[in-house]
Amino acid sequence: MYSVENTWKEIRDAGVQIAVIAIGAIEQHGHHLPLGTDWFQVDHVARRLAEKLDAFYCPAMPYGNSWEHQRFPGSLSLRPETLAAVLRDIVLCLRDHGISKIVVVNGHGANWILKPTVRQLNYDYPDLTIIWSNGVNPEDGGEPPVEIHSGLSETSRMMYLRPDLVKDEGVVNSPGIVGQEFLDYVGFDRVTKTGAWGCPADGATPERGEEILDASVESSARYVRWAFARIEEFKSQPSVVERDRVPGRESQEES
Amino acid sequence: MYSVENTWKEIRDAGVQIAVIAIGAIEQHGHHLPLGTDWFQVDHVARRLAEKLDAFYCPAMPYGNSWEHQRFPGSLSLRPETLAAVLRDIVLCLRDHGISKIVVVNGHGANWILKPTVRQLNYDYPDLTIIWSNGVNPEDGGEPPVEIHSGLSETSRMMYLRPDLVKDEGVVNSPGIVGQEFLDYVGFDRVTKTGAWGCPADGATPERGEEILDASVESSARYVRWAFARIEEFKSQPSVVERDRVPGRESQEES
Amino acid sequence: MYSVENTWKEIRDAGVQIAVIAIGAIEQHGHHLPLGTDWFQVDHVARRLAEKLDAFYCPAMPYGNSWEHQRFPGSLSLRPETLAAVLRDIVLCLRDHGISKIVVVNGHGANWILKPTVRQLNYDYPDLTIIWSNGVNPEDGGEPPVEIHSGLSETSRMMYLRPDLVKDEGVVNSPGIVGQEFLDYVGFDRVTKTGAWGCPADGATPERGEEILDASVESSARYVRWAFARIEEFKSQPSVVERDRVPGRESQEES
Amino acid sequence: MYSVENTWKEIRDAGVQIAVIAIGAIEQHGHHLPLGTDWFQVDHVARRLAEKLDAFYCPAMPYGNSWEHQRFPGSLSLRPETLAAVLRDIVLCLRDHGISKIVVVNGHGANWILKPTVRQLNYDYPDLTIIWSNGVNPEDGGEPPVEIHSGLSETSRMMYLRPDLVKDEGVVNSPGIVGQEFLDYVGFDRVTKTGAWGCPADGATPERGEEILDASVESSARYVRWAFARIEEFKSQPSVVERDRVPGRESQEES
Amino acid sequence: MYSVENTWKEIRDAGVQIAVIAIGAIEQHGHHLPLGTDWFQVDHVARRLAEKLDAFYCPAMPYGNSWEHQRFPGSLSLRPETLAAVLRDIVLCLRDHGISKIVVVNGHGANWILKPTVRQLNYDYPDLTIIWSNGVNPEDGGEPPVEIHSGLSETSRMMYLRPDLVKDEGVVNSPGIVGQEFLDYVGFDRVTKTGAWGCPADGATPERGEEILDASVESSARYVRWAFARIEEFKSQPSVVERDRVPGRESQEES
Amino acid sequence: MYSVENTWKEIRDAGVQIAVIAIGAIEQHGHHLPLGTDWFQVDHVARRLAEKLDAFYCPAMPYGNSWEHQRFPGSLSLRPETLAAVLRDIVLCLRDHGISKIVVVNGHGANWILKPTVRQLNYDYPDLTIIWSNGVNPEDGGEPPVEIHSGLSETSRMMYLRPDLVKDEGVVNSPGIVGQEFLDYVGFDRVTKTGAWGCPADGATPERGEEILDASVESSARYVRWAFARIEEFKSQPSVVERDRVPGRESQEES
Repeated sequence: MYSVENTWKEIRDAGVQIAVIAIGAIEQHGHHLPLGTDWFQVDHVARRLAEKLDAFYCPAMPYGNSWEHQRFPGSLSLRPETLAAVLRDIVLCLRDHGISKIVVVNGHGANWILKPTVRQLNYDYPDLTIIWSNGVNPEDGGEPPVEIHSGLSETSRMMYLRPDLVKDEGVVNSPGIVGQEFLDYVGFDRVTKTGAWGCPADGATPERGEEILDASVESSARYVRWAFARIEEFKSQPSVVERDRVPGRESQEES
Repeated sequence: MYSVENTWKEIRDAGVQIAVIAIGAIEQHGHHLPLGTDWFQVDHVARRLAEKLDAFYCPAMPYGNSWEHQRFPGSLSLRPETLAAVLRDIVLCLRDHGISKIVVVNGHGANWILKPTVRQLNYDYPDLTIIWSNGVNPEDGGEPPVEIHSGLSETSRMMYLRPDLVKDEGVVNSPGIVGQEFLDYVGFDRVTKTGAWGCPADGATPERGEEILDASVESSARYVRWAFARIEEFKSQPSVVERDRVPGRESQEES
Repeated sequence: MYSVENTWKEIRDAGVQIAVIAIGAIEQHGHHLPLGTDWFQVDHVARRLAEKLDAFYCPAMPYGNSWEHQRFPGSLSLRPETLAAVLRDIVLCLRDHGISKIVVVNGHGANWILKPTVRQLNYDYPDLTIIWSNGVNPEDGGEPPVEIHSGLSETSRMMYLRPDLVKDEGVVNSPGIVGQEFLDYVGFDRVTKTGAWGCPADGATPERGEEILDASVESSARYVRWAFARIEEFKSQPSVVERDRVPGRESQEES
Repeated sequence: MYSVENTWKEIRDAGVQIAVIAIGAIEQHGHHLPLGTDWFQVDHVARRLAEKLDAFYCPAMPYGNSWEHQRFPGSLSLRPETLAAVLRDIVLCLRDHGISKIVVVNGHGANWILKPTVRQLNYDYPDLTIIWSNGVNPEDGGEPPVEIHSGLSETSRMMYLRPDLVKDEGVVNSPGIVGQEFLDYVGFDRVTKTGAWGCPADGATPERGEEILDASVESSARYVRWAFARIEEFKSQPSVVERDRVPGRESQEES
Repeated sequence: MYSVENTWKEIRDAGVQIAVIAIGAIEQHGHHLPLGTDWFQVDHVARRLAEKLDAFYCPAMPYGNSWEHQRFPGSLSLRPETLAAVLRDIVLCLRDHGISKIVVVNGHGANWILKPTVRQLNYDYPDLTIIWSNGVNPEDGGEPPVEIHSGLSETSRMMYLRPDLVKDEGVVNSPGIVGQEFLDYVGFDRVTKTGAWGCPADGATPERGEEILDASVESSARYVRWAFARIEEFKSQPSVVERDRVPGRESQEES
Repeated sequence: MYSVENTWKEIRDAGVQIAVIAIGAIEQHGHHLPLGTDWFQVDHVARRLAEKLDAFYCPAMPYGNSWEHQRFPGSLSLRPETLAAVLRDIVLCLRDHGISKIVVVNGHGANWILKPTVRQLNYDYPDLTIIWSNGVNPEDGGEPPVEIHSGLSETSRMMYLRPDLVKDEGVVNSPGIVGQEFLDYVGFDRVTKTGAWGCPADGATPERGEEILDASVESSARYVRWAFARIEEFKSQPSVVERDRVPGRESQEES
């Protein structure tokens, strides 16, 4: 493994092919774990991964997007666009140095911005291959999703909705052969037969489409009504930050 | 339901409380479905949802982020930051008009940018409540995720990694009571007891932590090696856009 | 005409050369017309135009810049830079698909940002030709403006102001041969003889220049004084949104 | 008049109320006029205007948007967003100093970005009043446009297009009382009776609407076909920059 | 000292007043020092400083602006605007947590963007006090610069250049009482008597001004000519990255 | 010298090679000097410099970054990013016209943003050479700094801090041969032997490193404590803007 403990000459002479970038987060982790938990862990995991891959290990970025924790003292967040810019800048420097295979290890679930950023970088710079450190590996027993796009379900829905727009030709089954994260790496034109990922040939009908749509509206309406009520409930209660300042309260909650 | 078929006076006099915004996508849908599929469907579903909620239905935004389809003629994508700006501008106009409850109906899975955008809007403008049209409704049989943050798994990992930083006090179980999408609406200080969402009191050990971390590195490395190889394979094959120009080819692939 | 009701294969096989993009606006239209008026109309007109041109008709963008209507409930505006980004992203996708002739149909007078955006796109991407759907057609009886730049008027003004900087050579008449909107498509180096568009050879004098400048200052000062007063007057009156809440008021105003 | 030839104390003690900002352009002006023509002139006019208004005269911004002249050596342009930022920054500094009445004198027709920028500033900062140095002054004989929005023409078009959406109530004549540039200063809610600016009560009919729409499509199509051809023609000819390098050519063109 | 090794509750209960942010750089450090040198050092120094101040120590930002090293493999740079955004985001999070005294420890001279960023943050958020970890401490023997603004030199220059604009009144000596970095913290209105920082009353003359200006032009011209030549020379030689690939070359250079 | 008093044809025919851009500032200059002082002076100096260089003199940009003066009426500042954009746009226009040697004359010390902007432009566009009008000219008696990067001091500090990372090989003296501003023009790979600029071979020791680091922390802590106190003191006093409104106060301060 190479890292910033090396000199530039060592990096150059090694002819490194792969770089690993870890992205952490600084955010509250309850009463028992430290603010830096995500950063510490992703640094550990990513470093070991870089060792296995004999890669160049870039310093783990401590800060991520943790606005959902912002009310807790000590949580430190970047705005999504800032984190995107940090990743983009590092990736383009690596590209400058001839390193075009880059693994992103994300240490925090809410760093959502990384998803569109990695995808956009792969499409904007086709000479780069930026991948996630985790995903579905079919050769390792993983199950690629059968349907994602223009499959049985979506075809049925369109047969109900706009039958005039559904063609008879080209209704070809093309079930998933890799995980959905591959769409961050290459386009549908690489991983499908017609652009559709799914099994529209397995008996799509307008009736099935109507059912799915009805169910979708029903469940959406149910959820929305419930969610507005629940949020109101949450917002009307004191926040935990204030709540557990009340002496004796916490033990009661445990009972 | 109210919509842009109404006059401004009708909207004003109705005292609308909720708005619904649908976001579509313009992207290839195989040989049998039209480019506008996502837009047509989300418009249909969201409009019916708005009717049920007696909400103000904003015109469905046709364009989303579809870079994974960009190689197919007719796919039209916004850059992620553009879509974020569109949503933010519309939301802030609604806020201007005193509408603070907003439902976002996303018609395309790859509009990833909506996630951090909705979350950031909720945190930047606490007077707004912007929610998704779908999620986990526990009162409707949905299962909130037990562990998300500082639970049994994360505590075990930190006990292995940095035992000096794990406290004995405050190790309190606080399993999930709503779906994870609620973190787009309110913070951890509302939906947990200590900031932790999970069950660290159920027997976290360093051994368990070590196991999880080892497995994580192992599976990451396996995935990364496989993925680089698979992408290379994909990129070395002709794209489907070129591929199916070859006469007679497609039928062979089906066999 | 092609549209998002087609499949990607149909677009590809058609070899479409021209695309039409309509931009609407969501804004109040008085008591008798709906909020979506501009969007409905521009969609209608642009679609029919696309049919005539056998072009690819992109979904009409519903939202534009309508801040001058923002006080009226239901008006929904993008910030100018957002609308610019939407147009740019769509145009660059079309370019990706090999469509380089693009017609912008603007459905709302206050979408001012479209003007510098279209112009900049044409200059930044000289392989594109993005034009407006309307303009001066001299072959159809339209009158191109005689003077725009460095003509009789401007030369006279400079003769008065900085006679030392006015050259005798190259004073060549070059009256307009197309409408001013052509400057959004090609530069002055294409549509003029020397860079000047006008008739400086028709007797420019410092006296004429002084007169024009004096008149300009006079009329400016008159306008500015009046405008400040008028705005104050407007701002001191109740806004119409509040005003017509007063019962019985509206009928009086009509008398 | 006050200017940057004064000290800060003089500005403070004067209690200046109005500021004047001139925006120029650096662009070719044919063979006989200098590159700085627009800047020189706008500086002259704006300074004299500031004198008349006893205003604070800010240094004229030399640079504007002149991409249509960019092929000519010496033309120097800002990108539209840069010019917008310059104006916004200066305006906000003046606001900091308690100067809220600001006159923008635009020395170059193609500084289009100033239009949406001034309008947005007025709406974002309602305590400011930023006006143009020129416009329609009805008290001075100017003719405000009768119809702009939801008037006779637009109502007719909607009666043809979507008669179900045209209301009978509130069809009130509200012809223009100021020039259209007032929409950069205050909204429709100030200068109209119902939000409509025009005379829909003067006999709108679907027939009239159909006629207008048909004529609009016809003339658009005519223009578009002609314009594409004309641009091709322009682009196929040598640019004037190269053209007039040919010795002896220019005199011929004059004959 | 507090850090991200603490829990949120510990931070809250400690009532921390001061935060320390260190900014590093990842860049080549010759053949003998590692790429991470600046980061390692600034982390060390800033951590010890935080201990002394009993401050909250934010994770050191590894990445800075090192474009001058970009040709050397392993150097990783952010664009200036990205680094500015990172600092701003962290500072605003600290502000959210009630920490308004912030010390920036800069580990790399070329992180120039920090200078305008810190200054702008202090002026945009007057409730914050963001300071550098180093500067001139007059109570510790440091020498504040006597002249910075409108002093003897500048007054002389203006007496020569625009004598009509130099006032007789208010010519008051106001030599520096703190280092120039204080202008990043508070304005001239706090640290000077009249807005001038210098000694204009010590005998400013137009002759002195002329001399200074002449010398300035002379030395500029000398420098510019030399610099263009020197850069050409540098650019015409092979870069060291290529140079020292030549075997045996390096030892020669040492002799 | 050429300027915007010339026509485009004169610029073209002159084949100008060098352009000079002056950047001013509009800010208070005490009681005796005008707000425009920096602009007037830099315009004067830069114009004379352009004459000497027979360069194209761009109009001096009046506005710079003067937030430290913002409390004084009449000071007008751009935000740093705006000034950066102005410079970049002008530079790229000059590049369009084939002028690749550009001299920036900075008239105001606090225009900090120019530093990273010029550097970034030189690195983003290697065909451009943008230099400052002033710097260290060794051929003119100037003294280039001996140590900047990886020299004796930095090596000593690393020997103390991370001895495991300091290599024995490649410890080569490479003292400065030009001023530090050359790093805005070309990289370390041009002006050093190994990437190090300094004399690490002159006896670096961990002891020396420890001393330097200790002194650095000590002096930082001393400074920080003093600075926080001093700022509080400054902020608790009335600003000079208010202060000298008090009659009789100013004369007392002079005594």
